[in-house]
Amino acid sequence: MSAEIRFASAPELSARIRKRELSAREVVQAHLDQIARTNPQVNAIVTLTAEQALRQAQAADEALASGAEVGPLHGLPIAHKDLHDVAGVRTTYGSRALAANVPERDSLVVERIHRAGGITVGMTNVPEFGAGSHTFNDLFGATRNPYDPTKSAGASSGGAAAALACGMHPLADGSDMGGSLRNPAAFCNVVGFRPSPGRVPSWPAAAAWQTMAVAGPMARSVADAALLLSVLAGPDARDPISLETPGSAFAIDLARDFAGLRVAWSPDLGGSVPIDPEVTAVLEPAIAVLADLGVTIVEDCPDLSGAEQVFRTLRSWQFELSLGPLLDQHPDLFKPSLAANITAGRALRGIDLAAAEALHTALFHRTREFFERYDALLLPVTQVVPFDIDLEYPTEIAGIPMSHYLDWMRSAYFISATGCPALSVPAGFAPTGLPVGLQIVGPHRADLSVLQLGHAFEQVTGHSATRPPLAM
Amino acid sequence: MSAEIRFASAPELSARIRKRELSAREVVQAHLDQIARTNPQVNAIVTLTAEQALRQAQAADEALASGAEVGPLHGLPIAHKDLHDVAGVRTTYGSRALAANVPERDSLVVERIHRAGGITVGMTNVPEFGAGSHTFNDLFGATRNPYDPTKSAGASSGGAAAALACGMHPLADGSDMGGSLRNPAAFCNVVGFRPSPGRVPSWPAAAAWQTMAVAGPMARSVADAALLLSVLAGPDARDPISLETPGSAFAIDLARDFAGLRVAWSPDLGGSVPIDPEVTAVLEPAIAVLADLGVTIVEDCPDLSGAEQVFRTLRSWQFELSLGPLLDQHPDLFKPSLAANITAGRALRGIDLAAAEALHTALFHRTREFFERYDALLLPVTQVVPFDIDLEYPTEIAGIPMSHYLDWMRSAYFISATGCPALSVPAGFAPTGLPVGLQIVGPHRADLSVLQLGHAFEQVTGHSATRPPLAM
Repeated sequence: MSAEIRFASAPELSARIRKRELSAREVVQAHLDQIARTNPQVNAIVTLTAEQALRQAQAADEALASGAEVGPLHGLPIAHKDLHDVAGVRTTYGSRALAANVPERDSLVVERIHRAGGITVGMTNVPEFGAGSHTFNDLFGATRNPYDPTKSAGASSGGAAAALACGMHPLADGSDMGGSLRNPAAFCNVVGFRPSPGRVPSWPAAAAWQTMAVAGPMARSVADAALLLSVLAGPDARDPISLETPGSAFAIDLARDFAGLRVAWSPDLGGSVPIDPEVTAVLEPAIAVLADLGVTIVEDCPDLSGAEQVFRTLRSWQFELSLGPLLDQHPDLFKPSLAANITAGRALRGIDLAAAEALHTALFHRTREFFERYDALLLPVTQVVPFDIDLEYPTEIAGIPMSHYLDWMRSAYFISATGCPALSVPAGFAPTGLPVGLQIVGPHRADLSVLQLGHAFEQVTGHSATRPPLAM
Repeated sequence: MSAEIRFASAPELSARIRKRELSAREVVQAHLDQIARTNPQVNAIVTLTAEQALRQAQAADEALASGAEVGPLHGLPIAHKDLHDVAGVRTTYGSRALAANVPERDSLVVERIHRAGGITVGMTNVPEFGAGSHTFNDLFGATRNPYDPTKSAGASSGGAAAALACGMHPLADGSDMGGSLRNPAAFCNVVGFRPSPGRVPSWPAAAAWQTMAVAGPMARSVADAALLLSVLAGPDARDPISLETPGSAFAIDLARDFAGLRVAWSPDLGGSVPIDPEVTAVLEPAIAVLADLGVTIVEDCPDLSGAEQVFRTLRSWQFELSLGPLLDQHPDLFKPSLAANITAGRALRGIDLAAAEALHTALFHRTREFFERYDALLLPVTQVVPFDIDLEYPTEIAGIPMSHYLDWMRSAYFISATGCPALSVPAGFAPTGLPVGLQIVGPHRADLSVLQLGHAFEQVTGHSATRPPLAM
């Protein structure tokens, strides 16, 4: 029973709980067992809320028995990124400065999951304040890759990705400024979706109008991610940029006809970034399957110039805005690379930000015009396969040295700078057995069409269903 | 016939053209005659497109005769703010540096008006680049108040407000960063509506994500303004912050029941700004009529602290961003006060902008929470009645000296900083015969409820229908 539960799809589990073929308590217990069995190998969940989860599962079963109306996640176990405040649960942001932080209120993302019936089983590991795409910090150590524990699980939603792959829970929330929902999904053979800014409203937020960091869903399939998105999306008065489309727009069958679709593919973002040949060798044959669906694939890429300056400028400015005061309080508790980013944010001039906003606007219009010619853009998620866990970051890609911990993340963060929604979906494995992800980018706000294409790709290729060695 | 046409409501004119009781040509000609008669007294329209307008009116009549489907503004004359690009028509931004500027493409606002059948009769006067709330510039001189030509018409949509009051056209577009749709409406006894950011998409825009400057409708009644808003509102792919609600949401009867509505009133923004007693003396009895509609009025105001720093910081930063390069090219062609704002924008540090964004976010949440207790907030639009046309700005209000051209505009720009929609609606006249406007502020994105309350106020008080001496 337990093995069957722990890798079931979220809609299936939800339906079986609703039909009372399974109790929420059984489902939660099966996943807690799986956490006990696999988490020591990967270090994905850093705070466990087992007792509370079982109590809530009991209450969920009683509610159902009493005939109460229940939400779409009723009884489903879920873990939260350790950057998302959960009332009464230690939420550390991966920082020693917040090692004892217990929020009084749920963040909006967590509030929506709870309202939909999701049951919190714990918090997933992150790098310090989510900075960088390799999950390690001085509080909890590193998260290991379920396909090879000597490799990185990616980040910053690295704990979530590893936990999903290992069957610890069927759904997870994450967030993405420069690839944090996409890179770990690619590294761990799961699905991560960076939605359009405002699709998933954010609160609390240090700067309510910022568009670079977004929250989003992670899961083992695109359909599962869409189910979670249907709970997370929709307007909220606390987020001034939240989009008005209700979450129910994503609670639909993702199947559609693709005949006549025109899709661009770029193996190296138009030549703007180096890519490990192992990545390309997996992606090229994988995307060819789309032709069988009637999709025309053309090698092309929008002009992404300016994306580097836009992303790095806005990122360090926002880090300063949100973390500057804490750095002043605890200068000794920040990792040097993050402290350097915040310090760089302090040195920015207004005219640097103005130049970045002008480039940001130009980049937005170029990608908008690109998507007048194409329905989607296919790219590698990451420029490398999962790298050694003891590295801070890959120091070389295809012979090109990487001199900074952000350098290797451009295939993801260039897309963040465009404002487009982007999905990471499993695309296959390198000869070493390490997973590779395909990035599907869509026009601004066309979140649904990105999910539909990803779902079709996943159906044809079947890599999302593969279980990692550590979960066996 | 002509007198009846030139002060008719926009929906009435539109219906009569559609029923072919009036031709578009007659309607346009009547308004061109009124421009010829009244514009020399107020200097509201600075570029006239009479011949082109008559040709288009002819074509509009022919289209209707041929049975073509026509838009909601079919055959209605309209003038554009001289900050809104019109293809093939001189668009100067009130600046000598752009005295010969003829855009190749319509701005989005103008494009939508044209697509809805509106006929351009000319461009309305503005201060240089819309800076400040008194309409004068070195190209065209000052716009005069139709109620007293020795007084200011307000700004920056001052030409539009004066032209509407004089019956030169029934509708006008405008824009508002710090009061530019509201102050001139109040000074000229017409209606101006600052919608929520993103309600009216903007393009081209130097910084696509900015929320401080918005475009919106002006008219002689709230219902007319709502008709124009129904054409201007709705999403557009060229504006990444455009709201998804279609414009048709505003093409409805504004009448509703107000019983049980709870409204806050603050005569002086919670004591934060000085107000000319002449303004208060008009507003206090005027708002009392709302009680007859079943509205409960409570004296209260959100805490607006931080609004000053938010507005001034973001404004000078955006001025630098959009106008800095032109100032470098033509330093001698900028008025000193505007050049000083741009120069101040250059001196801003990233941390100044971060501090402003943090205050902006806090202000957003305080107003959001305020509107959990109230359905609307009533305020004076302006802190003074229309002032002498020869002043650059009022130098004293209620005994308090004003040392800068922005100082007297706080009752409007504090509200810009909150992100809330705000309507200026005629509220009556000071003993001198000068108009006074009521500002109705609503919760974020609650544009429709603001228009509904303004419409009811206007119906009861009847000041919007009053014609100025210069239009007689």
